[in-house]
Amino acid sequence: MKITCNKNDLMKGLNIVSKAVPSKTTMSILECLLIDCNDGVIKLIANDMDFGIKTIVKGTIHEKGAVAYDAGIILNLIRSLPDNDVTIDTDADYNTVITCEKIRFDKINSRSGEDFSYLPNVYKNLPITISKLTLKEVIRQTIFSISDNDSNKMMSGELFEIVNDNLRVVSLDGHRISIRNIKLNNSYNIKVVIPGKTLNEISKIISGDDEDEVNIFFNDNYVMFEFDETTVVSRIIEGEYFRIDQMLSNDYETKISINKREMLDCINRATLLIKEGDKKPVILNIADNKVDININSVLGSMNESIDIEKEGKDLMIGFNPKFLIDALRVIDDENVSIYLVNAKAPCFIRDEENNYIYLVLPVNFTTA
Amino acid sequence: MKITCNKNDLMKGLNIVSKAVPSKTTMSILECLLIDCNDGVIKLIANDMDFGIKTIVKGTIHEKGAVAYDAGIILNLIRSLPDNDVTIDTDADYNTVITCEKIRFDKINSRSGEDFSYLPNVYKNLPITISKLTLKEVIRQTIFSISDNDSNKMMSGELFEIVNDNLRVVSLDGHRISIRNIKLNNSYNIKVVIPGKTLNEISKIISGDDEDEVNIFFNDNYVMFEFDETTVVSRIIEGEYFRIDQMLSNDYETKISINKREMLDCINRATLLIKEGDKKPVILNIADNKVDININSVLGSMNESIDIEKEGKDLMIGFNPKFLIDALRVIDDENVSIYLVNAKAPCFIRDEENNYIYLVLPVNFTTA
Repeated sequence: MKITCNKNDLMKGLNIVSKAVPSKTTMSILECLLIDCNDGVIKLIANDMDFGIKTIVKGTIHEKGAVAYDAGIILNLIRSLPDNDVTIDTDADYNTVITCEKIRFDKINSRSGEDFSYLPNVYKNLPITISKLTLKEVIRQTIFSISDNDSNKMMSGELFEIVNDNLRVVSLDGHRISIRNIKLNNSYNIKVVIPGKTLNEISKIISGDDEDEVNIFFNDNYVMFEFDETTVVSRIIEGEYFRIDQMLSNDYETKISINKREMLDCINRATLLIKEGDKKPVILNIADNKVDININSVLGSMNESIDIEKEGKDLMIGFNPKFLIDALRVIDDENVSIYLVNAKAPCFIRDEENNYIYLVLPVNFTTA
Repeated sequence: MKITCNKNDLMKGLNIVSKAVPSKTTMSILECLLIDCNDGVIKLIANDMDFGIKTIVKGTIHEKGAVAYDAGIILNLIRSLPDNDVTIDTDADYNTVITCEKIRFDKINSRSGEDFSYLPNVYKNLPITISKLTLKEVIRQTIFSISDNDSNKMMSGELFEIVNDNLRVVSLDGHRISIRNIKLNNSYNIKVVIPGKTLNEISKIISGDDEDEVNIFFNDNYVMFEFDETTVVSRIIEGEYFRIDQMLSNDYETKISINKREMLDCINRATLLIKEGDKKPVILNIADNKVDININSVLGSMNESIDIEKEGKDLMIGFNPKFLIDALRVIDDENVSIYLVNAKAPCFIRDEENNYIYLVLPVNFTTA
């Protein structure tokens, strides 16, 4: 196999597919990425078996073939080259020479593409289509509340549920639920759970600064994302997702409107008094026109007043500060509305249109 | 004690003195910094016994006193506050209240300043005076070749040697020597070894973007740096420094002039083929008009030609690539001159005026 590509084009492709190279694996072929140019285009492929990426790179094919390279090494070598044409030439004995200007790498390890697992074939039925920007935003605004422990597989993924033209993306970890609703251009009836890892990696690959579209195809066992010259295929998580509708409610006894930045800064400040591993709640004391936010720990205490608009009853309620911080951090609105019932019931941070809903369970606290 | 300072002024001072708070210590008082306002100014002090910093912060003293605070906690709390006036109020029981706008931290731990070690008194004889910019540059261009192992204390410091109006700064680690020569405005006769740690921390504190001056005072056991409102006092390393003059020579058999950027990029690229912990030399094959730089390892080989100007004999010589990289990285000249004798003798990278001299010992190599 022998190809010539521009260094930057090649690097862009290598960066994309390297997201599917597992950092730890006992199977050395998984540490490789494949360059396959048997079909007249230069395809880069990586596949960690749960999740695979394919992308096409511009360039010239001098000699067909499919060769697997250690992903870490080839990435480092290509990255180090000047911005010019790069030629990769692998002979029948899998000895590889990489040349660029007056630079020549020789005897770089490579191996037959025959050992390599190609991506599974996914049947292309009608895709749902959303902009890159929207997909990236939706992932950012929900991914933080998946569970990172493996005891409940379903919690490590996100529900993508489409009823008619409404896409609802849901993540939860037993203490909180994050929901984003998006309007689509067409109607569907789809319910799948996509691994958090897949969504995290896709979010890194797609640039969020353009309105280009992503096509998403759903099959029985796989979900496939297509954008630009790139295809991402991932297994979905099998089984029934949690029934969340019964946990959601629009009833409230207290509603406050608060400046998001002030509240976030205040809670971040309060957490400075919490030593790592220590579980101290932040306590909101909601009265007319202001909320007192305070925390008590062995390191000291903090109290801060923030102006609010309030409807309904006064209330004192405690939260894990991290859960409030995570939700507030991803909301783009200047002011947020928080709906509460009592000190034992979940609070909801949501906008009028339910574009976003963050449910957070309160925690018990003692007042000193 | 009760003081009020602007948050940014206070933070600037805290950042400076925190450089003398050791990251690991068994003496809890060393983790503290002192605020002392008994002399009518607000002094911040930290001291790790080898090395101490004092700085003066603008502000209002409502009540005199000297109180020690956990450096990590007070730094975090003050940093978190909005840019406005901050009041620190410690009562007779060492209960501290910090207030800013509507924020109130309470019960912050503090302790009597009596346990705190003040900086040693250094007699202020005639100082040597150099610009911050020069001091920072000189440190950057030599500090990398001190030795980081503790078996030879003298190698962990840098020689500051002044003969007449010439300051020579030297560091060495047994494989290489780095030298910078600076002209001073006055004549002195001084020879001290300053701990590398002190120089590293000073380099972080002084901003390199201005021509403000630093006064340096030398005593029998201490060196003191004064600039702006800040004083840094450090023990010096006692004993006789290595005799380096006998290792320096202006004789050569081969001299090359090479583009610094090209050579640095090339050697960086070559090191990509070296696995961590593997000691592979980079081999320079010097011929008329070009040097071939190559490396061989289990991962593959690299060869690159770079155009040079050459005087004298052809030569093949091997180096630890890290030593060449370290020296080339800190040289600001576009082209560097390298002086060589044979494959067993040290090479010298230096400019005409000996403003900088980098001696690097070669290593043995086998040609494949």
